[in-house]
Amino acid sequence: MSASTPTQKVTAWLDRFGAALAKNDIDSAAAMFDEDSYWRDLVSFTWNIKTAEGCDQIREMLKATAAQSKPANWKIDGEATEADGVTEGWFSFETAVARGKGLVRLKGDKCWTLLTTMVELKGFEEPHGATRPMGVEHGVHPGRKTWAELRAQEQAELGYTKQPYVVVIGGGQGGIALGARLRRLGVPTIIVEKNERPGDSWRKRYKSLCLHDPVWYDHLPYLPFPDHWPVFSPKDKIGDWLESYTRLMELNYWGSTVCRSAKYDAAKGEWTVEVERDGKPVTLRPKQLVLATGMSAVPNVPKFPGAETFQGDQHHSSQHPGPDRYKGKRCLVIGSNNSAHDICAALWENGADVTMVQRTSTHIAKSDTLMELALGGLYSEQAVKNGIDHHKADLIFASVPYRIMHSFHIPVYEEMRKRDADLYARLEKAGFMLDFGEDGSGLFMKYLRRGSGYYIDVGASELVANGSIKLKSRVTVERINPKSVTFSDGTELPADLIVYATGYSSMNGWAAQLISNEVADSVGKCWGLGSGTTKDPGPWEGELRNMWKPTQQENLWFHGGNLHQSRHYSQFLSLQLKARMEGIPTPVYGLQKVHHVS
Amino acid sequence: MSASTPTQKVTAWLDRFGAALAKNDIDSAAAMFDEDSYWRDLVSFTWNIKTAEGCDQIREMLKATAAQSKPANWKIDGEATEADGVTEGWFSFETAVARGKGLVRLKGDKCWTLLTTMVELKGFEEPHGATRPMGVEHGVHPGRKTWAELRAQEQAELGYTKQPYVVVIGGGQGGIALGARLRRLGVPTIIVEKNERPGDSWRKRYKSLCLHDPVWYDHLPYLPFPDHWPVFSPKDKIGDWLESYTRLMELNYWGSTVCRSAKYDAAKGEWTVEVERDGKPVTLRPKQLVLATGMSAVPNVPKFPGAETFQGDQHHSSQHPGPDRYKGKRCLVIGSNNSAHDICAALWENGADVTMVQRTSTHIAKSDTLMELALGGLYSEQAVKNGIDHHKADLIFASVPYRIMHSFHIPVYEEMRKRDADLYARLEKAGFMLDFGEDGSGLFMKYLRRGSGYYIDVGASELVANGSIKLKSRVTVERINPKSVTFSDGTELPADLIVYATGYSSMNGWAAQLISNEVADSVGKCWGLGSGTTKDPGPWEGELRNMWKPTQQENLWFHGGNLHQSRHYSQFLSLQLKARMEGIPTPVYGLQKVHHVS
Repeated sequence: MSASTPTQKVTAWLDRFGAALAKNDIDSAAAMFDEDSYWRDLVSFTWNIKTAEGCDQIREMLKATAAQSKPANWKIDGEATEADGVTEGWFSFETAVARGKGLVRLKGDKCWTLLTTMVELKGFEEPHGATRPMGVEHGVHPGRKTWAELRAQEQAELGYTKQPYVVVIGGGQGGIALGARLRRLGVPTIIVEKNERPGDSWRKRYKSLCLHDPVWYDHLPYLPFPDHWPVFSPKDKIGDWLESYTRLMELNYWGSTVCRSAKYDAAKGEWTVEVERDGKPVTLRPKQLVLATGMSAVPNVPKFPGAETFQGDQHHSSQHPGPDRYKGKRCLVIGSNNSAHDICAALWENGADVTMVQRTSTHIAKSDTLMELALGGLYSEQAVKNGIDHHKADLIFASVPYRIMHSFHIPVYEEMRKRDADLYARLEKAGFMLDFGEDGSGLFMKYLRRGSGYYIDVGASELVANGSIKLKSRVTVERINPKSVTFSDGTELPADLIVYATGYSSMNGWAAQLISNEVADSVGKCWGLGSGTTKDPGPWEGELRNMWKPTQQENLWFHGGNLHQSRHYSQFLSLQLKARMEGIPTPVYGLQKVHHVS
Repeated sequence: MSASTPTQKVTAWLDRFGAALAKNDIDSAAAMFDEDSYWRDLVSFTWNIKTAEGCDQIREMLKATAAQSKPANWKIDGEATEADGVTEGWFSFETAVARGKGLVRLKGDKCWTLLTTMVELKGFEEPHGATRPMGVEHGVHPGRKTWAELRAQEQAELGYTKQPYVVVIGGGQGGIALGARLRRLGVPTIIVEKNERPGDSWRKRYKSLCLHDPVWYDHLPYLPFPDHWPVFSPKDKIGDWLESYTRLMELNYWGSTVCRSAKYDAAKGEWTVEVERDGKPVTLRPKQLVLATGMSAVPNVPKFPGAETFQGDQHHSSQHPGPDRYKGKRCLVIGSNNSAHDICAALWENGADVTMVQRTSTHIAKSDTLMELALGGLYSEQAVKNGIDHHKADLIFASVPYRIMHSFHIPVYEEMRKRDADLYARLEKAGFMLDFGEDGSGLFMKYLRRGSGYYIDVGASELVANGSIKLKSRVTVERINPKSVTFSDGTELPADLIVYATGYSSMNGWAAQLISNEVADSVGKCWGLGSGTTKDPGPWEGELRNMWKPTQQENLWFHGGNLHQSRHYSQFLSLQLKARMEGIPTPVYGLQKVHHVS
């Protein structure tokens, strides 16, 4: 064995694994995994998003799924590589109903990590390349309709005389990316969005907002950004992109439409969704309901005593218009994460007197350092040059088991601490409460665990460090007065403006509001891994709770996250929905339990 | 020599050629070309679009251009190939001011064909990939403006308080593709378009219209169609693409704007362009004026006696609304090219009584056959699989000298005649006058020579062959009566509708209308190679007259053609304009003479 090449090693492992599974010899297959091993499956075996950890869980998962999924045709894809005692190789495989792609890492001749992902359903492949539509049907067709006429007819009928199979509530990047995939799969879908136009959920935010993730991380499915697109898209520009994309992908996008209620009829297997489109009530009856309202749907505004007596402007960060009208005014921004920093900096740049109120510690990561140390290997110009485009990067990213992900991140943030030590020292001197996550694993783990608690520094930290943005730290708000705010340490600050940069409530809260408390409770908390860290209570789940996968409420789905997640996980959600529409059996393995009702 | 590989042969040729040019030893360099040889240069040596034919012309061209252009760094790119005694290889090179890419074909150790193209100007490269803009400027910038604010400011100022360097008249695919390239090059440009929205020049045509060229041929610069885009885009869908593209590329596109006049001040080197934007007069003062009104700008409507007495509907094909209101009506369509066939078929499909009036012979090429035999090698899914994307295809396409291009096309159309013999026989039996071009070289040569004279059959020919579309052939219109048309053979046909599918007048006519007869006459005819065939009078020019290159009128340019040409030649036109803006010397070699004033 030791003389063989990495490619031979991976090929041998795949051959043996495939042979064991072909004979349904689960014990032999499971014995090919290391004691310390992880199998992450995205829909292909489990009809779920699931990580089995260790031999026992893997054996259990295989016992439940292998006979039905009938895996076969395990084939290495390209050349395997070897580094630090780990052999890594791409492969393709098939199940009874689908084709898949995967990434395996071996330690010796045992598997350490395995990723299996569904790519397409057999017989229901997305038309593309040689199978794309002709556009014009050659020949002679009396009474034929043009593309524009058929589109107009579809738009007039869908939701009125014809029911969509899927209704997606929320037309941000999540709803749009999923909508594009469902369109290619031929799944009739309506996207419901309260704002008028696609992209408005970006456009309507504070005017200095730019994406905090770089362009290589942000592509939507099927239509990548052109190669001169800015690294950090300004909010209005990404708004324009989403709007054009929605149109070019021919999505049935209902803007200016508010969802009033949704109710599931288990006997009929159908939702009744009441919406108001341009003020007129419409009843939709889809089989599947997707909540894609995102992590930033329902503003969280703390109730401080006396707020109603305040005589200046006060609003949540999502309502903040930007700095123009606050030149020379005294502004208090409550909060210390991304929005708080962005808003403080823009106010200061426009000549306001700004104080940031920091109630709990915050993780600061300089954008340049983050790009270079954390994202650069997968999502950067250099990565593209190295042959790692976002398709490949998404799979590599997905192949790292959540259980051990923090251990790869900790050294990155140790390096960041060193590299930006000067900034961190000056921030602490200014009174800023810093953290790097409870275990020092930094930004992305905080994002996965709790979706908050950090600022990607694009300049504001310098203003905090040098005192341009004043800091009120280690306090909470005690009381709001007509022209000032009183803090828990007894001090008082005059204010003309209060911005509540206090985040958003969970997606589950939105299900409660839209459907019912009962359904929200039965589904439980969305997001978080169960790491047992702040705002991410255990037990360990090992995947993001309720995201992109079956929930305890039949035919209810949650979709969201950043552009990367919206792009990548919409693939798996769209395949789950398509399979159900086509009546393909979708036995779910390991449906997640409910541990937290919110 | 004979033992060396194709790559070694091409490398050796490039080395020797580069060495001769480095010493400015023009005679040695010219002696490396076969007697029967062609050097096509796109801007890199000649600041022109020029083919030198044979050793003597090549020597003359080198003598005039080599010392100034200082070519160097000739390097083979990838592996060369050999077939049928011809060795072919890609290469890169530099001049004093630019970087270029080329394709060389050798017969033995002599050059048979050489293509040299300019890719980018040194020091003025388009920002992309690693040099793309950041989008957000990190750090602290008091008073900074957002992307949306800067865009709004640019739109408010350009054309009013700031003058564009270039004005493009015509906002179809040509103006848009050129505008996108000029934008990336940082050349302030306004595109003037009479229609309201980008894409309207497609949308407003007859409703059954689809592109007759397949998707692989039609990409715009920088943002290729996604891989599920239909093979033949319906007109409204391509309209949507152009509109979204214009917005995403941030073009300064003045819709609903009519150009009234343009006058050149030679002393100032500046145009005065009078336009009406939304009905309000605006005076623009660009240095450069591009007419991108296309081959289909000014409808050509023949004047038939009695036309004013006709009591039914009559209009040019460009005004034809589609068949809906003509069910059961008697329709005469005068003409037998693409539009005539499309309109006849749509009318027939909608239950009209249709007669096509064919005055001269027409080349018919079945779309499927054309795609497979003529375009497939360069623009198809198979070509993409073979590693020939549209970038590569465009250069291969450009590398075939116009002088001998027909000789490569004749066998293709001989094969087409055989393959579709049945259709052709039935068309002739129905009285249809067929041709394959005067020398049997078919569709694309007709397009280059005269821009007309063919139909790409997507179904209508069958209707002509089987008599569903009635044919009135070998006649001209004698007279139009209130309710009928009388033909040159004395027959008369009743009519409720007359469609003049009679084509368009030349781009030169548009220059006369817009600028002056004097300027139009000094520039002369646009389009055509000078092949001495019908509607393409000699003498031989060897390139499309006046297209994408300097004309006899300083700082006046013509841009147009199909999507392929709009994409590819906008590259060379944009580089010529950018060089002039930056004050880079652009000595034009071989400025074309005027042989035809229209």
